[in-house]
Amino acid sequence: MLEGMNGHFSEDLFLKNTTGKYLYETYAKEMPILDYHCHLLPQEIFENKEFEDLGEMWLAHDHYKWRAMRTFGIEEKFITGSASFYEKYLAFATIFPKLVGNPIYIWCALELKRYFDIEEPLDAENAPRIYAMTKTLIAQNHITPRWCMEKSKVEVVCTTEDPIDSLSYHYKMRENSSAKTRILSAYRPDRAMFCEKEDFSSYIQLLSQAACLPIDSFSGLFKALEQRLQIFKEIGSTVSDNGIPDFTWVDYTDEEIASVFEKALRGEILSSLEIDRYRSAFLFEIARIYKRNGFVMQLHIGTYLDTNTGKVAIIGHSTGFDCIDDSTRIKSVGTLLDKLSTLGELPKTILYPLDGTKIEAYAVLAAGFCEGGIRAKVQLGAPWWFNDQSFGIQRQFEAVANLYPLSLSVGMLTDSRSFLSYPRHELYRRVLCNFLGSLVENGEYFGKESDIATVIRDVCYYNAKAFFSF
Amino acid sequence: MLEGMNGHFSEDLFLKNTTGKYLYETYAKEMPILDYHCHLLPQEIFENKEFEDLGEMWLAHDHYKWRAMRTFGIEEKFITGSASFYEKYLAFATIFPKLVGNPIYIWCALELKRYFDIEEPLDAENAPRIYAMTKTLIAQNHITPRWCMEKSKVEVVCTTEDPIDSLSYHYKMRENSSAKTRILSAYRPDRAMFCEKEDFSSYIQLLSQAACLPIDSFSGLFKALEQRLQIFKEIGSTVSDNGIPDFTWVDYTDEEIASVFEKALRGEILSSLEIDRYRSAFLFEIARIYKRNGFVMQLHIGTYLDTNTGKVAIIGHSTGFDCIDDSTRIKSVGTLLDKLSTLGELPKTILYPLDGTKIEAYAVLAAGFCEGGIRAKVQLGAPWWFNDQSFGIQRQFEAVANLYPLSLSVGMLTDSRSFLSYPRHELYRRVLCNFLGSLVENGEYFGKESDIATVIRDVCYYNAKAFFSF
Amino acid sequence: MLEGMNGHFSEDLFLKNTTGKYLYETYAKEMPILDYHCHLLPQEIFENKEFEDLGEMWLAHDHYKWRAMRTFGIEEKFITGSASFYEKYLAFATIFPKLVGNPIYIWCALELKRYFDIEEPLDAENAPRIYAMTKTLIAQNHITPRWCMEKSKVEVVCTTEDPIDSLSYHYKMRENSSAKTRILSAYRPDRAMFCEKEDFSSYIQLLSQAACLPIDSFSGLFKALEQRLQIFKEIGSTVSDNGIPDFTWVDYTDEEIASVFEKALRGEILSSLEIDRYRSAFLFEIARIYKRNGFVMQLHIGTYLDTNTGKVAIIGHSTGFDCIDDSTRIKSVGTLLDKLSTLGELPKTILYPLDGTKIEAYAVLAAGFCEGGIRAKVQLGAPWWFNDQSFGIQRQFEAVANLYPLSLSVGMLTDSRSFLSYPRHELYRRVLCNFLGSLVENGEYFGKESDIATVIRDVCYYNAKAFFSF
Repeated sequence: MLEGMNGHFSEDLFLKNTTGKYLYETYAKEMPILDYHCHLLPQEIFENKEFEDLGEMWLAHDHYKWRAMRTFGIEEKFITGSASFYEKYLAFATIFPKLVGNPIYIWCALELKRYFDIEEPLDAENAPRIYAMTKTLIAQNHITPRWCMEKSKVEVVCTTEDPIDSLSYHYKMRENSSAKTRILSAYRPDRAMFCEKEDFSSYIQLLSQAACLPIDSFSGLFKALEQRLQIFKEIGSTVSDNGIPDFTWVDYTDEEIASVFEKALRGEILSSLEIDRYRSAFLFEIARIYKRNGFVMQLHIGTYLDTNTGKVAIIGHSTGFDCIDDSTRIKSVGTLLDKLSTLGELPKTILYPLDGTKIEAYAVLAAGFCEGGIRAKVQLGAPWWFNDQSFGIQRQFEAVANLYPLSLSVGMLTDSRSFLSYPRHELYRRVLCNFLGSLVENGEYFGKESDIATVIRDVCYYNAKAFFSF
Repeated sequence: MLEGMNGHFSEDLFLKNTTGKYLYETYAKEMPILDYHCHLLPQEIFENKEFEDLGEMWLAHDHYKWRAMRTFGIEEKFITGSASFYEKYLAFATIFPKLVGNPIYIWCALELKRYFDIEEPLDAENAPRIYAMTKTLIAQNHITPRWCMEKSKVEVVCTTEDPIDSLSYHYKMRENSSAKTRILSAYRPDRAMFCEKEDFSSYIQLLSQAACLPIDSFSGLFKALEQRLQIFKEIGSTVSDNGIPDFTWVDYTDEEIASVFEKALRGEILSSLEIDRYRSAFLFEIARIYKRNGFVMQLHIGTYLDTNTGKVAIIGHSTGFDCIDDSTRIKSVGTLLDKLSTLGELPKTILYPLDGTKIEAYAVLAAGFCEGGIRAKVQLGAPWWFNDQSFGIQRQFEAVANLYPLSLSVGMLTDSRSFLSYPRHELYRRVLCNFLGSLVENGEYFGKESDIATVIRDVCYYNAKAFFSF
Repeated sequence: MLEGMNGHFSEDLFLKNTTGKYLYETYAKEMPILDYHCHLLPQEIFENKEFEDLGEMWLAHDHYKWRAMRTFGIEEKFITGSASFYEKYLAFATIFPKLVGNPIYIWCALELKRYFDIEEPLDAENAPRIYAMTKTLIAQNHITPRWCMEKSKVEVVCTTEDPIDSLSYHYKMRENSSAKTRILSAYRPDRAMFCEKEDFSSYIQLLSQAACLPIDSFSGLFKALEQRLQIFKEIGSTVSDNGIPDFTWVDYTDEEIASVFEKALRGEILSSLEIDRYRSAFLFEIARIYKRNGFVMQLHIGTYLDTNTGKVAIIGHSTGFDCIDDSTRIKSVGTLLDKLSTLGELPKTILYPLDGTKIEAYAVLAAGFCEGGIRAKVQLGAPWWFNDQSFGIQRQFEAVANLYPLSLSVGMLTDSRSFLSYPRHELYRRVLCNFLGSLVENGEYFGKESDIATVIRDVCYYNAKAFFSF
């Protein structure tokens, strides 16, 4: 039998050099987690119910796993369909040994190890046994959302909500002083940006109601949006989140925007020029609100949403049919930042390009908008979505450290819909320490141990704490 | 003298870790080959003549070598010109030691070792001796096309033919029961797609004759194309091949297509919008034919053909003057797949982007069109053309395994015009086993040995066998 | 304490394998330098004054360091502002230990070691001591521009000048027979290409005066440009340098160009089509001049200049606010080369794409325009600007050796504004030897030691010497 293929999870995972292992064990491993961007449901956190089983925990919301299962030709019934979570779990287990090189393999392995102390890799054979073991442990340990967070030392979680959201669960949770994890909300006004969508005018009505303000103009829209943002601010939130598919900056006049806005409210079909114009104006104005209110602007750029429209019509949005768009030009994002910067209205900003080949150009762009008084005012975000695995993380470290000091990064986030995803921070930290260790062993860094320790702790925790004012 | 520079081919080539070596020797090395895409000439296979010499075998058709020779400033006479194959071979030998890091170096080294058991690297000094040795061996062993295929355990070869091709040699070879390699043909209807080319209308006439059907409309064109495809189907073919330079999806009406088609038949100059419209319609309709007939659709995307027009005018097409285009947007390909998928008419599809930086976006796109009942219905192809070396293969493994299970890949192909190219499968398998070995040694995979063995055998052989119904 | 973090510069820097170390020490280390592209000031070289201190040497001109300092939120006063060089140096020293993974770290470490024999890494604590030490050494050793060049065995330096430059310092230096470094000038006619800039017509007047020729037409412009180029030729220059932001090839007629030129002279606003048309014609015509005069054409493609306009308005051009543009299509550059090649007027050309993800497509393009009689007639340049660190160099070796023989490269250049930058050649050579060593150890190259020695010496020195006729 081959060494390595001994059927056991290894604590040396991703740590290929001695220095990296030492750095991880000594400086990174025990750091708490600030998960400043995810898609957990606040109601689930508030209710804090025990999970049913591993099937639910793994397969209720995870479009990464759904996507992978579809590539194997598994019937939709066992993915998002009518099968039980146990059946879905078994279907997933059959493909698990074939996910070699895929992040799902490592994520699940880490989750089994960290939350259930299971060291063997899942397969069709041991699947029923692992199911039973985890079911027992869930019941015995009362494994709930809050249990997961505390187990992983999560200090802050930012869920993501629409401006029209009442934040009722967030407000309730604020009153719960026993919880060790602070739950904030990231403000995500995308629906007000998608002027071309069918439900735009009905959304504007809902927003108007939520804000108790009439919205009959573009400036009225932003009054309402800012009013709602202040509700987020009240619970301590400091983060926004903007999802931008393709983006082309187009100069505009107030009259042009007024006209697009009115057409959009009337539900008329907009030209692509009108959409670009509105999107440019929207992002410009929302950024000014962020700046005024001390919010960090997160720009998630380059999604090709609902690529497979037939499947989306049946199965729904965000179920694994979104892809990567490659049409946004750097200059469009640069122009937005430039217009804001020139007016002194550029908020702290994090750029997340979905197209992983763009990270260098975005890192360079970010550095071009940094300035005195604020550390890393504009920065590149952690590898996002299709990039958030060891390959994407390592690539970003290698490429970006050259262009923007890695030591300034606010580090990892889960971006997840699962309470079991916190080991993604561990994965990031392992790759980070391995990277730094290799630089040291390669003669590329020969500073003091305390200096590199500071870098690690900053990237794992302190940079985010300071940047987001947590 | 430095170890390693001992002037001998090493059997550890590309195998940097112990696990990888073990996996390669144990599971990959002896697998047969299914070469489902190449550009060999069926007549040469049928006639199965002994080769003249290594000069002919290496330099008669290989635009990779021609290109490399031109970068060294070698006169065209010794590349594609009037010099003898021996002179061309000598010219090539002089640059050989300077091809460090280039796939031609490794391909030639593997070819010398596997077919002639020559372990020393070619150079100007030993060139005459190696020439003589190989000439003797060709004669002694009666080295012919079929000999090469059998030596490399090639079970299936798909050559590539135009719909107007009579497939006469394929039909003749069908009757030869002694051949150990099955010769099929991939259907390549590119000439019917290039409505903007001068010879379009004359091509349509040839197609009309070949199909014994009049072609006076766009739908008539597809009747003829399907009629011809069935000739390919009859000899057992299941593969098509579409070469797409730049591609912009444009919505169209039947009237618009009818108009473009008529203009094209009349040889009128088409606007780029008309060309895009026709190309969109063509790919949509041809895909439906593939689906109806159970053919796999291969899309080779992003060629910048005949870049150096002056040289092409003198030396000809496909002689080393084609380059990489970077203008096709993912959404154009996505829209094509989506239109087909929504109608239930999407065939099994393999995507080959020539721009190597797009592999991640295409892998994600492919996964977005997979569905129940078919393993890896849409998938990324092996690294193509400028990418089909260890660097491109390794990059694809690293990048794509994260986005699309590597274990589902139909694996390597030669895409070659030379009968000596089968060691490219060996190269691919070595890089594959090295990659899997590194995952194991790095703690990223810890399943059973039998699981990883299955992955290797599937990628080397069984996935292709099932996918193409060979 | 961890090994490696012993606070000492290591002579094994970047040399991870035994073969690579041997190759570097034996063949690369002592080669002289041909620095065929940089931005040093000829007046400073001529005057050859002793430097004030390390603050001046490091922070007077270096926008890489300025950029990095801004990311840390350091006030502009300590970057480009009114603070003394000592204060700026101290500000820089505080961030130095946090520049892990950044080329500035390694560049500074190499500069301290090679010019001052200082082995410890800079930090806030030792900064005053290192400052004093270096100040003493500058005075003791009379460290001047020429001292730096001779210390690093620099045989040739090409500064970069505008056609209107009188080259007075170059002419004076020609007469100085004691200097060991030959100082040439690269001809950079960008201002004549930027027809859309406000100062275009006043620039044309200056050019007219410099050339003593009236410029009242587009062809008149090129008469003046060629007249000036011959002044560069007279001092022995053979290199040009063209900075091209985004570039879209547009076909044009003489009348169209005449009209744009006249509008530009009158200071009228030009459409983007007119700008593209002019840029196409300009690059075509200037290339013909290079060809006629035996100059090498360097094309630096893909800058997003003055991205942060507000800061540029205050701090100035080229102060760290330029970024990477991603909009130029390969076909635009290909069309330019093709038009020239077809007429037999393509000069030797070096392509430098700023977008590092394009290197493969450009390498392939370059190979498509090589031809008999000239080694590497069109080739990819060394990794440029944001790419000129170990990551970018290694990536280029890995990616490009596969597509264009690495052994033909004219190698490294500094592109720098600092006299301390020559160790960038050392860095390049280390990464080169490490790369070649890994190929050997991996079984990918097994030629003679003398062959690989030739490759190294060619890339470090002889290729550039021959290509530029130095």
